[in-house]
Amino acid sequence: MTDNPTPISGMELARYSGHATFMRLPHIPLDRDEGLDVALFGLPWDGGTTTRNGSRYGPRQIREMSTLLRSFHPTFRLNPYQIARIADVGDAPTNPVEFETTLRQLQDFIARITARGTVPLAIGGDHFCSFPMLRVLGRERPLGMVHFDAHTDMYDHYYKNSRYTHGTQFRRAIEEGLLDPKRVVQVGIRGTAFSEDEHDWLFAQGVRHIGMDFLRDNGPDAVAAEIRAVLGDGASYLTFDIDALDPSCAPGTGVPEIGGINTYEAQRILRGLRGLDLVGADLVEVVPALDQSGTTALVAANLAFEIMCLLADRAATRKTAG
Amino acid sequence: MTDNPTPISGMELARYSGHATFMRLPHIPLDRDEGLDVALFGLPWDGGTTTRNGSRYGPRQIREMSTLLRSFHPTFRLNPYQIARIADVGDAPTNPVEFETTLRQLQDFIARITARGTVPLAIGGDHFCSFPMLRVLGRERPLGMVHFDAHTDMYDHYYKNSRYTHGTQFRRAIEEGLLDPKRVVQVGIRGTAFSEDEHDWLFAQGVRHIGMDFLRDNGPDAVAAEIRAVLGDGASYLTFDIDALDPSCAPGTGVPEIGGINTYEAQRILRGLRGLDLVGADLVEVVPALDQSGTTALVAANLAFEIMCLLADRAATRKTAG
Amino acid sequence: MTDNPTPISGMELARYSGHATFMRLPHIPLDRDEGLDVALFGLPWDGGTTTRNGSRYGPRQIREMSTLLRSFHPTFRLNPYQIARIADVGDAPTNPVEFETTLRQLQDFIARITARGTVPLAIGGDHFCSFPMLRVLGRERPLGMVHFDAHTDMYDHYYKNSRYTHGTQFRRAIEEGLLDPKRVVQVGIRGTAFSEDEHDWLFAQGVRHIGMDFLRDNGPDAVAAEIRAVLGDGASYLTFDIDALDPSCAPGTGVPEIGGINTYEAQRILRGLRGLDLVGADLVEVVPALDQSGTTALVAANLAFEIMCLLADRAATRKTAG
Amino acid sequence: MTDNPTPISGMELARYSGHATFMRLPHIPLDRDEGLDVALFGLPWDGGTTTRNGSRYGPRQIREMSTLLRSFHPTFRLNPYQIARIADVGDAPTNPVEFETTLRQLQDFIARITARGTVPLAIGGDHFCSFPMLRVLGRERPLGMVHFDAHTDMYDHYYKNSRYTHGTQFRRAIEEGLLDPKRVVQVGIRGTAFSEDEHDWLFAQGVRHIGMDFLRDNGPDAVAAEIRAVLGDGASYLTFDIDALDPSCAPGTGVPEIGGINTYEAQRILRGLRGLDLVGADLVEVVPALDQSGTTALVAANLAFEIMCLLADRAATRKTAG
Amino acid sequence: MTDNPTPISGMELARYSGHATFMRLPHIPLDRDEGLDVALFGLPWDGGTTTRNGSRYGPRQIREMSTLLRSFHPTFRLNPYQIARIADVGDAPTNPVEFETTLRQLQDFIARITARGTVPLAIGGDHFCSFPMLRVLGRERPLGMVHFDAHTDMYDHYYKNSRYTHGTQFRRAIEEGLLDPKRVVQVGIRGTAFSEDEHDWLFAQGVRHIGMDFLRDNGPDAVAAEIRAVLGDGASYLTFDIDALDPSCAPGTGVPEIGGINTYEAQRILRGLRGLDLVGADLVEVVPALDQSGTTALVAANLAFEIMCLLADRAATRKTAG
Amino acid sequence: MTDNPTPISGMELARYSGHATFMRLPHIPLDRDEGLDVALFGLPWDGGTTTRNGSRYGPRQIREMSTLLRSFHPTFRLNPYQIARIADVGDAPTNPVEFETTLRQLQDFIARITARGTVPLAIGGDHFCSFPMLRVLGRERPLGMVHFDAHTDMYDHYYKNSRYTHGTQFRRAIEEGLLDPKRVVQVGIRGTAFSEDEHDWLFAQGVRHIGMDFLRDNGPDAVAAEIRAVLGDGASYLTFDIDALDPSCAPGTGVPEIGGINTYEAQRILRGLRGLDLVGADLVEVVPALDQSGTTALVAANLAFEIMCLLADRAATRKTAG
Repeated sequence: MTDNPTPISGMELARYSGHATFMRLPHIPLDRDEGLDVALFGLPWDGGTTTRNGSRYGPRQIREMSTLLRSFHPTFRLNPYQIARIADVGDAPTNPVEFETTLRQLQDFIARITARGTVPLAIGGDHFCSFPMLRVLGRERPLGMVHFDAHTDMYDHYYKNSRYTHGTQFRRAIEEGLLDPKRVVQVGIRGTAFSEDEHDWLFAQGVRHIGMDFLRDNGPDAVAAEIRAVLGDGASYLTFDIDALDPSCAPGTGVPEIGGINTYEAQRILRGLRGLDLVGADLVEVVPALDQSGTTALVAANLAFEIMCLLADRAATRKTAG
Repeated sequence: MTDNPTPISGMELARYSGHATFMRLPHIPLDRDEGLDVALFGLPWDGGTTTRNGSRYGPRQIREMSTLLRSFHPTFRLNPYQIARIADVGDAPTNPVEFETTLRQLQDFIARITARGTVPLAIGGDHFCSFPMLRVLGRERPLGMVHFDAHTDMYDHYYKNSRYTHGTQFRRAIEEGLLDPKRVVQVGIRGTAFSEDEHDWLFAQGVRHIGMDFLRDNGPDAVAAEIRAVLGDGASYLTFDIDALDPSCAPGTGVPEIGGINTYEAQRILRGLRGLDLVGADLVEVVPALDQSGTTALVAANLAFEIMCLLADRAATRKTAG
Repeated sequence: MTDNPTPISGMELARYSGHATFMRLPHIPLDRDEGLDVALFGLPWDGGTTTRNGSRYGPRQIREMSTLLRSFHPTFRLNPYQIARIADVGDAPTNPVEFETTLRQLQDFIARITARGTVPLAIGGDHFCSFPMLRVLGRERPLGMVHFDAHTDMYDHYYKNSRYTHGTQFRRAIEEGLLDPKRVVQVGIRGTAFSEDEHDWLFAQGVRHIGMDFLRDNGPDAVAAEIRAVLGDGASYLTFDIDALDPSCAPGTGVPEIGGINTYEAQRILRGLRGLDLVGADLVEVVPALDQSGTTALVAANLAFEIMCLLADRAATRKTAG
Repeated sequence: MTDNPTPISGMELARYSGHATFMRLPHIPLDRDEGLDVALFGLPWDGGTTTRNGSRYGPRQIREMSTLLRSFHPTFRLNPYQIARIADVGDAPTNPVEFETTLRQLQDFIARITARGTVPLAIGGDHFCSFPMLRVLGRERPLGMVHFDAHTDMYDHYYKNSRYTHGTQFRRAIEEGLLDPKRVVQVGIRGTAFSEDEHDWLFAQGVRHIGMDFLRDNGPDAVAAEIRAVLGDGASYLTFDIDALDPSCAPGTGVPEIGGINTYEAQRILRGLRGLDLVGADLVEVVPALDQSGTTALVAANLAFEIMCLLADRAATRKTAG
Repeated sequence: MTDNPTPISGMELARYSGHATFMRLPHIPLDRDEGLDVALFGLPWDGGTTTRNGSRYGPRQIREMSTLLRSFHPTFRLNPYQIARIADVGDAPTNPVEFETTLRQLQDFIARITARGTVPLAIGGDHFCSFPMLRVLGRERPLGMVHFDAHTDMYDHYYKNSRYTHGTQFRRAIEEGLLDPKRVVQVGIRGTAFSEDEHDWLFAQGVRHIGMDFLRDNGPDAVAAEIRAVLGDGASYLTFDIDALDPSCAPGTGVPEIGGINTYEAQRILRGLRGLDLVGADLVEVVPALDQSGTTALVAANLAFEIMCLLADRAATRKTAG
Repeated sequence: MTDNPTPISGMELARYSGHATFMRLPHIPLDRDEGLDVALFGLPWDGGTTTRNGSRYGPRQIREMSTLLRSFHPTFRLNPYQIARIADVGDAPTNPVEFETTLRQLQDFIARITARGTVPLAIGGDHFCSFPMLRVLGRERPLGMVHFDAHTDMYDHYYKNSRYTHGTQFRRAIEEGLLDPKRVVQVGIRGTAFSEDEHDWLFAQGVRHIGMDFLRDNGPDAVAAEIRAVLGDGASYLTFDIDALDPSCAPGTGVPEIGGINTYEAQRILRGLRGLDLVGADLVEVVPALDQSGTTALVAANLAFEIMCLLADRAATRKTAG
């Protein structure tokens, strides 16, 4: 096996240069199997979006802004690209006018990654993109999940009877047995609701909420501890909707909710999740047209790097353990 | 019958006041039949969009910017609201995650308008929204059509076999007999193409093109004359994709093409179309998120007013003639 | 009496559809008395603005962004539209070139609302718009007031002797006996000052300040408690200048001051005010041209909803009590 | 008398340096009489604005963007600062909350300039600012005027009876005998109108219009010739509302109208006016908040320079002749 | 030799997908010689910029926007990627803090391309980037040049004695014998000048100007004819400064000048240059930060495609001829 | 000695008026020695920038936004302009294409200020501008330094061997003996790093770090105390890179890092530094093109005022003591 793929360093080639892959990693197409530990890729699809759309351009803008990043994590004291084999494997094919077709295409693309034992890290796209991820990753046993979001995405349906949207995908995942609701925790839920009973179903399933008052009263370390308690040692998924963050930090998203998490808190909570058995992850709902400055995408790129480090650390630990 | 509905005048109530209906016209819901001659409404749907989406927010931003307009047309010397009964009848219902459902909903909404003999003027949404318009209006006999656009929207399909998109709808309309291709003229077609033969089918059908060289060499009056020659006296449809305009005039659209029509030319061509038998019209593809300044929407509102005057004038003429 | 007016739900009609009234509430003009408990309306006037103007467009943009909201308050566990009769009654007439005329027009409009026992919730406009509110509401006895703002708005005059501006209105209100200064508390005051003695007058009157250090050292619940202590049980007014918030949360305002309140804190303080006897409220100083993204207006819409819930809850409580 | 004041050259000091006076001219306050031929100054006032306000910030942004300009006019082959004494004399004092006070202040400021025989070139501010200019300059005999604008600004009143606004000022000027309507020509008038008869009064006075069709059919040289024919040899005023330009060129203004003049045409028409007896001029209605990129202000700075050259050339010619 | 590299078609993979190489061409690094006819690459350097900098980000944004393009040229009736071997070979290395170092690096990079007989098409960067291009391409004999620009870039020096800047590079090129001034034509020169004599030197050398008046009076075909007359059959270079265009078309550049070329004219002139012996070309001075909407970059991508077609056509013709 | 220079008050002349010097202070050129205690000036240079450049326009935009400020500090209870002689002395000359030349020019400019005993407060420009400041101020003995920044700026070199950049200047300063590393403290350091050992050198020198975890866990007062402990009584420098702040507060900078300091914290820490022996200061890295709204510049202007008050207070104290 060859050396690990590594990003081009800003010390070598000025950061404004070169094609905009994630952090200027090598692009390794799926058909060139290189035994990756972690694969980053785009799911540029917003077919499940009920309001302000455009997250299909999320992967491209996040990659663009990721070129400002360097490779060494200052708190974990690790360079994920040194301890694990990681590449940007490109984007899944999608068909913006055909929902069912695209759902299949995404599942196929993700399954090709996981078939090799590679851990997938997806960049959305809207939050419905978590659904094909879970269909592939939760196929054999239900997963735990830590879910950063302003919204539960566990409605039964939208409109008359639309059951597959970016607001319902996690109810579908629980119904399909892809998630174990007792090992699901939602962080950052807030904002106005449709109705009084809108959380009844999910609480009945055993889903846990960590709200903003808990975070502000107890701090991010307590949040991380709570997440760890809910997820335990089992295989788990991490999903990060950028609207978990406050609009001051991430205005470029479809349904921002005020009173949200700031980026420091997000980093500190994520840093508290080291050691969890994360088998896949995504970061979704960045809408570039709603923040052409790229600030939201820069935030997303940084959080994707945080998640990347969690996944690389897990891969390295398992190799050592193995 | 009561007095004609009229917009609130900026002389009466400052233009920054009041709810943003089109030009601050009264909102008259469809279920309150008031014998309208022309109904303006939104088709806030971008389910057929293959690139930069978001035109679902077009109707709202165009209405917002339309509040800067006054009611009297300076060249036609007419106030459409004095000579015809016109209102803003709101938006068609849509379902952003279900293509077929929405297509049916749009057709139903439009059919309810035309059932009363009202001429529909739709604000998109993406260009696929023309398709339900034609399904309703061209049901009984094929229509002529003047089509302002940078693109033909007459591809056979996108991707493997996606036949219903905002780039294929007019081929479908010809195939369904909703349009008479020999009475179809496309104005402003330009930009890079997919392939050498991409116009073969449409030219074989008899569709005519008026390109930018013709416009710039012969001027807008010659273009209007050519359009009139193609459409003749028969019932016709007018569709205006905002990307017919140059990006300097209308940057807020999904697929802008440089070297386009400017707003003066657009106005002068439209003004040359008075007297055509226009049975319906639309203006589409404004993407507010791509021009938050509202300039593109202001252009769209002005062109919608030009079209409104053509429709009102036709209504008034027919009343007089009748 | 008919059913309560209710906003169109995003579950029924996609949020990007329909005319942009506040939260897509029915528009009920003032001359159609429907026994409202609370009336939301716009005061689109910035005639008192000494710096960056344009808040006359505030009501329209706040309504536009309010269409992203849902009806149920997650903390209070109530839907204000179920417990009280509420509508969007439109905008007050204004004359942007005549100060005295507009002041009269605003007072008349507000008085027509309160004459029916309806509680007014005004969307500005600049902060001088609080003055006609107080002229109407404080006519019979001086009110208490909780005032969120970076600035005191209690200068004696601007320039040589301009006594009616958006920086002097609350001194005028105290002088006219509309406010009881001992029951006035200002939250969020900060930023550079004109002179050393600029607070002397207001402190002498008994006005209380809660500054940023107090908030950050003691937390939002302590702030709410302090406000309640100052206002007591008496009839009070709530006024929220969007510049009370930090520019990171609300850049779209005329005179932003750094080091301000964030949206979480604002929500938590407001939620601590349940039960106060609020007879009217306003939210002012959003300048859409200074934040075309709409983020500031979205924040404002959310805070207006918080205030709406306080007013609805009071109305419902009094009915029950009655 | 000392050397002429001259702008700092970009060859000497990089253009991004130095305080932003107009073209980095010396700032010479009014109380330091230096026998100027032409004085540029700001009238930062938008008290007459009926729609989107904020032109009070026009002077500052135009000065900022003017720092990109160089001093030599490429067509006239002259450097105005070599042939005439010119300076930036700062801004007139204004009171944004007092209409009458400010009108007086502006008149006084302008009168102090003209008292020394200096020709005033004002940067607005809204178009009402032309009114104090005419009150001072037209005091002794009515002036001719070339008026670039999308709107006539000759309404009788706004609202019930508001006679002093940025849409009525030139009717007032004719009524006060400050303008000779037979020597007034309006260039670029277009857009929707309030009513059929809205031009009756002004045409009856003898005011001439040069519309967009004339410009596009006959070209800018014919427009210049027509203007010269109307103005003749008499003392005349030049006023340029930035909305005479198309929104593609100048989006940053309160009431943009599509189908307007482009910047090439504007330059070529202005260049055709050399030799007219221009006793004063203004450029108005730039609203910085509506175009934070500064493009509109850059256009304005360039057109102000064109006008400056006309005024300097006149001054130089008269000295030579004298 | 393998099949020609071709862009990914929007018919195959939705345009919002995939890494942003130019038009989604394959990225072929320089060290993988594939016998290219034309190589597109970035020169991301703005070290010669005297005013508003940031064109170092030009290549990346132009590539991003180029993903909206299709491969077939509608007027030439050709697909450059079918008739010639073309790829995106990435970016030249640069050192933003060392002028001399970078100049050498650029020359080396370009020389590696031309060493294989590949025609270079560079995307800037600022206009000084033309200088290393000419140093390599004009080494053996002076070239002719068609130069689109608002500025001559033939000053002797900036500041005290800075001879290498983006305003002086073409004088250096003439002095070094890289250009034959009698075969150099500058199109679009306009705007204010530093001094009366600033064109004396270049006219004395025999450089020709085609100004805006000539273009508007005679049309773009006459301009193309004039260019062809100046360049003749000899080897020539094409350089396009985006500020040749009007700011309404291309606001995102350091020193925009009003009254410029529009995109239709630019396309028509470029299309008139088919058959010239173009041995290299560049497109420069796009500053992404000054137009985050990407419109300027989209214009640039389209013009780069026009130039690409000229270069491909030349390559194909020579192969056939050979 | 004449009266102290003072800013124009917003009570006297509306804030949107007058030339944009810092806070509308008098502009006093360097050659007019007026015995200033503190001189504010611009160092408009970004020649050391390795990524997103454009901070050369920082001084102008910061001055523009500073016109919103008033003169009295609300916490210190002082007006710096009353207790010290302060003016805006303009910008240092720079040459954007010559690194060495400019470095010399900056040193000369700064030395002319300090030669009179005036304390310099520089507005950048990029962070390399601190280097000429230290070359002048640290000439006689090494200074202590409090350094607000997301980055250490203590790399050895960029690229092959570029030792003078905006990421290396403080290592150079230590090497040259301008700083005493044991009295240097860096506040806000965070973000991804190039390598594991990148802090080894600086920690070995004795430089101290105060990270975000310390700030959030201990609060701003503890940070201020820590800074005071490190700096002690010795002569010290204060440098504030705007990217010390979170991107939500200051998006307009070249390399924003999430999880940063907010403006309240920045103010409170700065306010805790009263009494330190600050012999000079700078505020750098505002890139106007990356935040055309001016919010970042407004933040910078406010922080510059905080620093100004520290410097004025020191000057006044020393006079009294003297």
